[in-house]
Parts: sequence; structure tokens; C-alpha cells
Amino acid sequence: MPVFQFLPFSALLGTLGFLCVLFTGFWAQHWRGGFAWDGSTKMFNWHPVFMVTGMVVLYGAAVLVYRVPISWTGPKLPWKLLHAVLTLAAFVLVVLGLVAVFKFHSTNSIANMYSLHSWLGLAAVLFFSCQWFMGFSAFLLPWSPTWLRVLYKPIHVFFGSTILALAMAASISGINEKLFFSLTNETVPYAQLPPEAWFANSLGMLILVFGLLVLWALATPAWKRPDSESLEAHQPLLH
Amino acid sequence: MPVFQFLPFSALLGTLGFLCVLFTGFWAQHWRGGFAWDGSTKMFNWHPVFMVTGMVVLYGAAVLVYRVPISWTGPKLPWKLLHAVLTLAAFVLVVLGLVAVFKFHSTNSIANMYSLHSWLGLAAVLFFSCQWFMGFSAFLLPWSPTWLRVLYKPIHVFFGSTILALAMAASISGINEKLFFSLTNETVPYAQLPPEAWFANSLGMLILVFGLLVLWALATPAWKRPDSESLEAHQPLLH
Repeated sequence: MPVFQFLPFSALLGTLGFLCVLFTGFWAQHWRGGFAWDGSTKMFNWHPVFMVTGMVVLYGAAVLVYRVPISWTGPKLPWKLLHAVLTLAAFVLVVLGLVAVFKFHSTNSIANMYSLHSWLGLAAVLFFSCQWFMGFSAFLLPWSPTWLRVLYKPIHVFFGSTILALAMAASISGINEKLFFSLTNETVPYAQLPPEAWFANSLGMLILVFGLLVLWALATPAWKRPDSESLEAHQPLLH
Repeated sequence: MPVFQFLPFSALLGTLGFLCVLFTGFWAQHWRGGFAWDGSTKMFNWHPVFMVTGMVVLYGAAVLVYRVPISWTGPKLPWKLLHAVLTLAAFVLVVLGLVAVFKFHSTNSIANMYSLHSWLGLAAVLFFSCQWFMGFSAFLLPWSPTWLRVLYKPIHVFFGSTILALAMAASISGINEKLFFSLTNETVPYAQLPPEAWFANSLGMLILVFGLLVLWALATPAWKRPDSESLEAHQPLLH
């Protein structure tokens, strides 16, 4: 890809991410009966909204923190804290999204964790929780040794992209599966492509485009923090 | 990730890719009734086999051609031809995979192109066909000007990864959707996780791992051809 400026690119990403959240909420509100926290399908509706918002959009913003050019000068610590806070907020949304689906399943005696979607999603969440605690322990706790930071950093970076890819695959298979559940012969079959199917299929494509652009931004050498291998990069919380 | 040697990594990738093909074929043969070319579900069974083999595994091998260290010395032309031949072979399999599903649908009066899986898959195939023809025109035809090669190369590289990501998302949503179609109350519901569901879910995870490792290998700077920006990199077919 030709070299772009990061900030206009971020504005594009922000717009796409906002649209992902808006589309997911609109789908649930307009076609799936809206929201509640009562074990019904209205409670399930929080699941896609929390997951897309937390595990894709907020997570996508959090992983790009070190690509913001103004983060390259001055101390790295405020940016590490911002990264930790954003990923923690994403993780809280993900936990709420899990509660929404598990409570809906248990209220309605629906089996858990059988579909490929659920396996991918659980893998994403498990990796994400390990990633957060290991990142916190290695990069923010003051007693973590430099050799550990140097050793762990490329692993953390690698799993940062992997977790987003897992979340994208889980989101897409989840949207596909939800449409097969909801659009049946009792309503309008998915195969007849009613407006809801067009809308939610487009949401799936939008999530894919957003996620691919984040992964591409992460992999672009010109957008990496130039001093990312210096000692300062391994600055702990209290020093 | 710590630095690995490319060749042992390729052996791992080769093993995983072989397992992806083997698992897809075994799933169709053992649980879905085997293969035929007659418009029945046995014809449909070629669809996942051709798509996983062509659009994921063979494509994955083709995009890594320029990462093989022995390709870095000597003329680039033989490697370009190998890349073109492997991607063309992948494309032929993809076309056969499309024929298998469209013939099955038309024989059984099933609608085409409505699910998110089908949209993702069609996007992957359309991008792939443009990618092949533009790659051939820009990098192999002798009259293509150097400025075009220089301009188009990063775009070609970017879409190389994007197409694989689309193929992974299509494969995973396709496996998920096929299991919901096949494992119903008339057999054993998907929700009861019969052996077929375990097996095909594992296939989905395997495809994801294979694809992510290919994407990661493509993005690893140390594995890129060192002279990839030199004039020789833009050597046409007849010069």
C-alpha cells in the first residue's frame, strides 16, 4: 500500500468502528426486539453489541495506541496506561457480552459452547485474558526484569494481532449463525434475503474491513514507534 | 515472536496445510456421504474440499514463495513463474469449488448467494481473480512499464494477505453453517456435539491457525526478500 498519514487513516478507522457499533445496535433494536437484562432474547441482543464494541472496535483502538505519532516522543508510560485502560474496558464489555449469552442460554435451556463460533469466541476471550494479565505483569509492574520485557514483547505483539483475528472470525461466524437462527420459514427465510439479511451481512463485511485495516496498520513498519526496541520502551510503572 | 528459521517453519506449515485438506476430505467422506459429480449433496462435498485446498492451503503456499531464502539469490523470474502457476492452480480449484456448490443448488432449487459466508467467499474469489490478472499483466508481461510495477507492487502485496483473510473468514463461517444445516433434530443436533461436530469445529480452528501463521510469515520483516525494492524485482517475463 502507498504510504498514508496515520491520523487521517485513524479518522477513517474511527468512522468504520463507530458504524460497526451503530449497525450492531440498530440490528438488535430494529429487527430483534431491542434490549433487556432478563434472560430473554432481548438479553441475548446485548451479546453482539458488547462483543463487537469491546472485542473488535475498542480492542482495535487500544492496539493502535503506540502507532499515534505524538506517542513517539516523551515518556511511554502514559501511553502504556492508556493501552492498559482501553484493553481493560474492552475486556469488561467482553465479560458482559458472555454473561448476556450464557444467562440467555441457561434461562431457555439452550446448550452452551458447541458451535465453531463459540469455540473461536472462547479462544479469543481466553487468549485476551492471558494477554492482559501477562502484559500488566511484564510491562507495568515495576519489579518485572528487563530480560522478561525484551523476551515477552514480540510474543505480546504477535498475540495482539492473533486475538483480533480470532474476534473477527468469531463475529462473522456469529452473525451468519444468528441469521440462520432468526430468519426461518416462520418469518422470512434467510435464503430470500430480506432487508435484515442485507443489513447484517453488510455488518459482517464492515467488521471484516475494520479488522483488516487495523491488522494492516499494526503490520506497517513505517507506523511503528521508532524507539520501540530501546530500554525506555521497557519502562515500568514505578521507576 | 522470537526469530525462527523459515524452513522448519515451512515444514510445520506444510504439515498443518496437509491436515486441513485431509480433515476436509475425511469429514465429507466419513460423515457426509462421500463424493460424486451429479448435483447431489455428494457433489456439494467437493465444495469445501476444493475451497480449503485451493483458496487456503495452495494459496498459502503460493504467497510464501518469495520468503524461501534460496529464492533471494539468482534471477527472480523462475520464482515469479512458480508463484503464478501455484496461484493459477489454486484459482482452478476455486472455480471447481464454485461449480460444485452452484450445480448442487440449481439441481435442488436452493437459493444462491444469500448468506454472509457466500458474500465473503464471493468477495475472496472476485479479489483473487483481479489479483491474478493484474499480477500477470504488471509483473510478467514484458511491456509493462517499471513505474506501474513499482506503483502496483505494495497494492498486490496488501491484497495478497487480504484475500487469504477473506478466505479464512469464508471457510470458518461455511463450516459453522454446514454443521447447522447437517446436524439437526433428524440426526443428532449440533448442540449435542456429536463426533462430527467436534471434528469439523477442530477443522475450523486448524484452518484459522494455518492462515494466521501464513499471514504472520508474510508480515515478518526478516523473512522478506532483501532486494525486494530493487529493479531486478521488477524483471518482466521477456527481457
